[in-house]
Amino acid sequence: MPLVRIDLRQGTAPAYRKAIADGVHAAMIESLAIPPDDCFQVISERDPDSLIYDPQYFGIQRSAKVVFIQITMSLGRKPAQKRALFKRIGELFSQSPGVRPEDIFVNLVEVAWENWSFGMGESQYTKD
Amino acid sequence: MPLVRIDLRQGTAPAYRKAIADGVHAAMIESLAIPPDDCFQVISERDPDSLIYDPQYFGIQRSAKVVFIQITMSLGRKPAQKRALFKRIGELFSQSPGVRPEDIFVNLVEVAWENWSFGMGESQYTKD
Amino acid sequence: MPLVRIDLRQGTAPAYRKAIADGVHAAMIESLAIPPDDCFQVISERDPDSLIYDPQYFGIQRSAKVVFIQITMSLGRKPAQKRALFKRIGELFSQSPGVRPEDIFVNLVEVAWENWSFGMGESQYTKD
Repeated sequence: MPLVRIDLRQGTAPAYRKAIADGVHAAMIESLAIPPDDCFQVISERDPDSLIYDPQYFGIQRSAKVVFIQITMSLGRKPAQKRALFKRIGELFSQSPGVRPEDIFVNLVEVAWENWSFGMGESQYTKD
Repeated sequence: MPLVRIDLRQGTAPAYRKAIADGVHAAMIESLAIPPDDCFQVISERDPDSLIYDPQYFGIQRSAKVVFIQITMSLGRKPAQKRALFKRIGELFSQSPGVRPEDIFVNLVEVAWENWSFGMGESQYTKD
Repeated sequence: MPLVRIDLRQGTAPAYRKAIADGVHAAMIESLAIPPDDCFQVISERDPDSLIYDPQYFGIQRSAKVVFIQITMSLGRKPAQKRALFKRIGELFSQSPGVRPEDIFVNLVEVAWENWSFGMGESQYTKD
């Protein structure tokens, strides 16, 4: 049920973007126990003027390789699970495609379980 | 007050995209009783690598014609209204532009009524 | 911690878009007391068919110069702060780059403080 929006700079290779999308998804499976086939993502490439980040907020040295990840998901995850998710995204991105942990920005938006339709005009999580 | 984000594949005709936008809006008028002139939408066309969907989650056979609809709206709708919305979007898309119900993904994000400004620097729903 | 998404028509100058991004950020510093270096924004230019607005909802005469601003931020701001934010965005946009108050649409999405990672795989606001 997560809907993931990924924003990053223009000019990366398709394999680079796929590794990012796959890494976010794998981290959600491991940390949030989402089903492996619950995968819905949108990737947007941005020119430098359109992807604005502070280069040192919280003392973290960000670069133009910054990746914004906004995940809309259902309510109910504990803070420890969210922290595990952030940590795991960092680990997986470090392995592939090689994004520095400084360059990973993640935001979670939580919604009610009844707020999803995966098709057929139904609310699959709350049929009645 | 809804802000609707629609993401779909590149290469559709303007009339196709307009039918989708109009269908979502009509379904919200009918199911959520929003005012007919409360219409604010953003449509993004995506190349195949950038619109990622699972082809069978929940046993629903999705195709490259999948449409993601994310609706930010005010709190207070009952689950039955949300289910009516999902159902009505499916019916209207089936009529025009002819989107299969398998290919419709909808997510609702709910916010407080005071979280909207429609212009003039004011919060129209909660002026004081 | 806000993540700001700005959608506006295609064809504006980079300086125009920068003034909009800067204006939203300055208004958040003044009205919500966010740290000055807490700046993360995404700007999307849209063709006319893809940026859909009602030209008179709430009696406000919108034009093709409409700007949609969606701000995801942490919970806890009072309604008066949100109204101050809307007002200040209007004032600053009027000064630069010269956007009419009729053409400013703002939506706030609120999330838990633990829902942010600014890098390093950590949840900076709630480390434990």
